[in-house]
Amino acid sequence: MKTRLTELLGIAHPVIQGGMIWCSGWELAAAVSNAGGLGTLGSGSMYPDELRAELRALRAATDKPFAVNIPMLYPNIAEHLQSCIDFDVPVVITSAGNPKLHTAWLKERGRTVLHVVASSAFAVKAEAAGVDAVIAEGFEAGGHNGRDETTTMVLVPSVVDAVSIPVVAAGGISDGRSMAAALMLGAEGVQMGSRFVATPEANAHRAFKDEVLRATEGSTLLTLKELAPVRLIKNAFYDRVAAAYARGASPEELESLLGRGRAKKGMREGDLVEGELEIGQVAARISELQPAGDVVRKVVRDCEVLLQRGC
Amino acid sequence: MKTRLTELLGIAHPVIQGGMIWCSGWELAAAVSNAGGLGTLGSGSMYPDELRAELRALRAATDKPFAVNIPMLYPNIAEHLQSCIDFDVPVVITSAGNPKLHTAWLKERGRTVLHVVASSAFAVKAEAAGVDAVIAEGFEAGGHNGRDETTTMVLVPSVVDAVSIPVVAAGGISDGRSMAAALMLGAEGVQMGSRFVATPEANAHRAFKDEVLRATEGSTLLTLKELAPVRLIKNAFYDRVAAAYARGASPEELESLLGRGRAKKGMREGDLVEGELEIGQVAARISELQPAGDVVRKVVRDCEVLLQRGC
Repeated sequence: MKTRLTELLGIAHPVIQGGMIWCSGWELAAAVSNAGGLGTLGSGSMYPDELRAELRALRAATDKPFAVNIPMLYPNIAEHLQSCIDFDVPVVITSAGNPKLHTAWLKERGRTVLHVVASSAFAVKAEAAGVDAVIAEGFEAGGHNGRDETTTMVLVPSVVDAVSIPVVAAGGISDGRSMAAALMLGAEGVQMGSRFVATPEANAHRAFKDEVLRATEGSTLLTLKELAPVRLIKNAFYDRVAAAYARGASPEELESLLGRGRAKKGMREGDLVEGELEIGQVAARISELQPAGDVVRKVVRDCEVLLQRGC
Repeated sequence: MKTRLTELLGIAHPVIQGGMIWCSGWELAAAVSNAGGLGTLGSGSMYPDELRAELRALRAATDKPFAVNIPMLYPNIAEHLQSCIDFDVPVVITSAGNPKLHTAWLKERGRTVLHVVASSAFAVKAEAAGVDAVIAEGFEAGGHNGRDETTTMVLVPSVVDAVSIPVVAAGGISDGRSMAAALMLGAEGVQMGSRFVATPEANAHRAFKDEVLRATEGSTLLTLKELAPVRLIKNAFYDRVAAAYARGASPEELESLLGRGRAKKGMREGDLVEGELEIGQVAARISELQPAGDVVRKVVRDCEVLLQRGC
């Protein structure tokens, strides 16, 4: 399945593994890249020396293209960006920030740059900033998300109409059906996050992975919109957030309730009670752990069958 | 394009026009049915004698199959149901209630029954109650909506896996791309609402239609979740709702703020300031009024082209 995205990234299949905090280290990225997709390190939960260690390990584990995801709100962003140059990272995926800030710097240094957007307006800005492709991520996606709440079904064709660079669909995608749907919407590839959390290679805690497998429709909710909207599993911590809302808590109270380190506690340390458990709605459609390479191959094969027989 | 849905309903194209309050009377339903889709009267905003008058007019305007949508919370539901028998309405679409209540009664009287669901669990209940097909409506849809906030991309394949009867996708669908995506997700047809509001035949107020055309990403929001979640355009009335939330208003205060008759005021009378303006996210993708028959033909044609060329 060749698209402008596979050409741009030099990959066999138009499948990107989302770079997720506390879940996506070198084992996952290597497995995806070796299967012909684009593996991605989620640098948003790594100190600079950790990212460099991950890059060394990933370089040793694959000779295929891979990416580093850099949330632009990250405090150590300058060091992370420099590591991408030092380790000759082929693809940098920026998110949660202004693409004007670093795109030119990265492009001058030969990197391919993708930017994650949640609206057509930001897609246009990203294209103007010189990115090579945009990842259009809908409301159903896990973790941090846009304020407009536009779903993948509405967002992807809107972004496709708004820009001329390739568009990658993200949010709600886990199998051949949803990948085929994304391509019908005009995307030239997909990014999957939740599906790759439920793999042996993801370096999330096993208890969190099991919770993802147990999730059903309605298990997740987009919340904390006054701070930064985030989709997470409704657990005991979330119940306290809901109670705070019910009494009309201020953003400051919410921030204090959230505190620091909850995502690590939930996703890496497996505290299902007090942790922040970020995952997409599509967790409801994932019922077993599957090796990441098998995920790539099965999703692509099932998608191809659907496209060939016209659904 | 033949599916089990076109067979079941005796229609040429697997396209259902959603039965929307204050928007869908006989002119719209006749135009859709005459173009080979399934036109639907939205009875939720009609008194019993109005529905009968609409049915008389619709019977005179088409000899094709059509439907009546009956929200089961409607106070005059017994009279509406009887009218569907008296006027030999071929298809009854029930929504917002328990499908056990009336499905057997309707089936015994020879009606084809579809039920609108927002979750797999309710789809299973609807199938057990004996409905002929379910309409799986995602979070992005306009008007009243489910509490789980599951989007079309996640909901449709989940429902397809959960039941053996045909599944119709609704929410976020307005063109050939989104229809093709819905079919790839496993749906055997689509229901469109917002797209049919933006037609000359819809009996909504012209000012409301123009507001729908002006809508962009982020113009709508699912709100009033403590009462009955509803997606509407953020206008001055909505700003007061948002202010009430910010001060921690109780459900009773919200109900009193909502009052009665706001949907009619907004959608039928064109009061864009004080009215409740119910529409789907996909309004962002609709930029002109188009005759309803042309909508049906263009969406189906564009979808067929995409399916034939494999996206």
